Amino acid sequence: MSFKNVLVGQSGGPTAAINATLAGIIKEGIENPETGTVYGMVNGIKGALNDNLINLSEIFSDASKLDLLKQTPSAFLGSCRYKLDVKSDDIDNIIKILLKYEIGYFFYIGGNDSMDTVLKLKDKCHEYDIKVIGVPKTIDNDLNNTDHCPGFGSAAKYIASTLAEITQDAKCYSIESVTIVEIMGRNAGWLTAASALARLTGISSPELIYLPEVPFDTDKFLDDVRQKVLEKQNIVIAISEGIKDKNGKYVSDQSEIFKEDLFGHVQLGGAGKVLENLIKQTFGIKARSIELNTPQRCAAHLASLTDINEAEQIAISAVCSAISGESGKMMIYKRVSDNPYKISFETSSIEDCANHEKIVPPEFISPSGNDVTDEFIKYVYPLIQGEPDIIYKNGLPVHIMR
Amino acid sequence: MSFKNVLVGQSGGPTAAINATLAGIIKEGIENPETGTVYGMVNGIKGALNDNLINLSEIFSDASKLDLLKQTPSAFLGSCRYKLDVKSDDIDNIIKILLKYEIGYFFYIGGNDSMDTVLKLKDKCHEYDIKVIGVPKTIDNDLNNTDHCPGFGSAAKYIASTLAEITQDAKCYSIESVTIVEIMGRNAGWLTAASALARLTGISSPELIYLPEVPFDTDKFLDDVRQKVLEKQNIVIAISEGIKDKNGKYVSDQSEIFKEDLFGHVQLGGAGKVLENLIKQTFGIKARSIELNTPQRCAAHLASLTDINEAEQIAISAVCSAISGESGKMMIYKRVSDNPYKISFETSSIEDCANHEKIVPPEFISPSGNDVTDEFIKYVYPLIQGEPDIIYKNGLPVHIMR
Repeated sequence: MSFKNVLVGQSGGPTAAINATLAGIIKEGIENPETGTVYGMVNGIKGALNDNLINLSEIFSDASKLDLLKQTPSAFLGSCRYKLDVKSDDIDNIIKILLKYEIGYFFYIGGNDSMDTVLKLKDKCHEYDIKVIGVPKTIDNDLNNTDHCPGFGSAAKYIASTLAEITQDAKCYSIESVTIVEIMGRNAGWLTAASALARLTGISSPELIYLPEVPFDTDKFLDDVRQKVLEKQNIVIAISEGIKDKNGKYVSDQSEIFKEDLFGHVQLGGAGKVLENLIKQTFGIKARSIELNTPQRCAAHLASLTDINEAEQIAISAVCSAISGESGKMMIYKRVSDNPYKISFETSSIEDCANHEKIVPPEFISPSGNDVTDEFIKYVYPLIQGEPDIIYKNGLPVHIMR
Repeated sequence: MSFKNVLVGQSGGPTAAINATLAGIIKEGIENPETGTVYGMVNGIKGALNDNLINLSEIFSDASKLDLLKQTPSAFLGSCRYKLDVKSDDIDNIIKILLKYEIGYFFYIGGNDSMDTVLKLKDKCHEYDIKVIGVPKTIDNDLNNTDHCPGFGSAAKYIASTLAEITQDAKCYSIESVTIVEIMGRNAGWLTAASALARLTGISSPELIYLPEVPFDTDKFLDDVRQKVLEKQNIVIAISEGIKDKNGKYVSDQSEIFKEDLFGHVQLGGAGKVLENLIKQTFGIKARSIELNTPQRCAAHLASLTDINEAEQIAISAVCSAISGESGKMMIYKRVSDNPYKISFETSSIEDCANHEKIVPPEFISPSGNDVTDEFIKYVYPLIQGEPDIIYKNGLPVHIMR
């Protein structure tokens, strides 16, 4: 007889939707007659290594708490960045814990690195008839084989909304100004590209968009800015934190000279700050840079309902897939149609997903290299639709904690 | 016969509520039988100087547009930072325009500097029987004589909610970390103090709060941090952008040496970045600084319903006061009671309001100097209550533009 209990963990950087995925696992794990008790690993795979599990069936026996979980940002179970060492006892130790808790179904919610954990565990798990499935999660939208990633839509909605608000703010004075908005995404520009959605509010901002996929050329950038400032008094530019020149040198590293010469490991701001100063020095006009920072991944109060619902559904689908015998897989979204928007939930072999990084393809980037195409807008538009009914208390969104 | 038309302008830094105040003037100006056409100055008093007025009665003849105006951040009419020059023809030129448009009621929405404009105009306006009234507006909450300022409650709600979300994010890894959140307020720490409301979500963050009202002592700060990190793995610190040492030197200016020695007018980040680096160097632990930046004043999607309603009501009250013959005044909130929360709308002489700056009083600051008191929480709590029903389209909040 094989085991029926469920173990779930969260790994990598937090998002506004990763707890919706956890809620889906818990809900289906509790309700489905084929599954037993649902346990959670505290701080990802480290919780399994250290026998630090909590009983989620008990904690969420009151189902209304799942609604609060879905609107809580970050990882309820805690996260980790730990790569399994196949030469150590890591895997054997984890198997011992899985057997101790009679785990038949193992779910790991995370990005590229987390899928590596699933990949490394799957063979040994199969020996003990334990199903192991990865569930994607990343605001960066850079996982292979899936149409998009849970967490991306909410971050995209936050970025586009905030950029629209920043634009209203930036244009209130009748003096020339350049506002640079620095957006997350070290190697993949999906989130920076999503800033283009702000134009759906009726503004022309962002006037320029720079992704890490296009080599950044400072002279070209200054020409672009010069031209746009001539056309319009106030412009807003969206840049990825990871823009780099043709030699692969990050723009943000142009402040490295300070670090090396004077201050050890002092960090002096990112690409936005570097370009803000460049614009001030070159044109002598008002410039400001805004780093959107962690709110991009934790502003759950402005989540995309589409994203939250899909993030929960893909988890339910993961439990059902495991029960039906699938293992060594990552769950994926397949887009069935754009209009009406429709997706299906499927599985993909974990080998195709782990350790790959999907960047923005050329057809989504304008030939000028400083904007996105209509095709990209068609792709990203459905992902930010809808607003969850957020429960507030004391004037603040309600969060739930371990 | 005196004139009946209305002229309204917006001035100073934008907020999430300044357009609600504009909506109140327009609504009452259109509906009240004592008032005629409502005009708006484009870019504040500059619009009056340059005969750049628009007909708001026409633009908002469809009253449903006022709802969209109320949820649009920044200044619909555009803003300016212009101090009237009493030695020039400024005031005479403005009077000419007021007579040309048959203005009987002049409303100026703004902060300290904007009240100076009202002060300078009032005597000359009285000669022509033109009523002139200032309506307060500032996220900084630093205007004299009023219990609080329109715009502050929404910024406070945004800051407390965002700090709660950032805290969830910060504590997901089981490694020691310090997160510094830099909040607006150069001289007055009201907004930074409001971050304490985040604790109402059940967290202990911010663990430390530093206001510009308390001289910043680096050694004391490092002692505070050391102690809190020993107690808790992940701590979040709220600081005002304007914290300064006992000699009045801004912490943010500690990066001045870079500017002077190397880079002309290069700006390298604010107080948060300075303290982030100080913590990294002193303790060798993970530190991150987050500058909340302009979203503090333009995140209208997360406005306080109390603030938006009051900002509209104080404008309606301003129109009624002017009609009843008041002039040379600033509108103020008087708190009638804390629980149930109740305010009244009154007028104060403009001399008491213009060019003054109200800072956080000692009774709102804890004796340790690194936190706020319960008395402050009692004061600020009612101001962030309630959420407006924001109208979304295409997955984004709807904004209205000139």
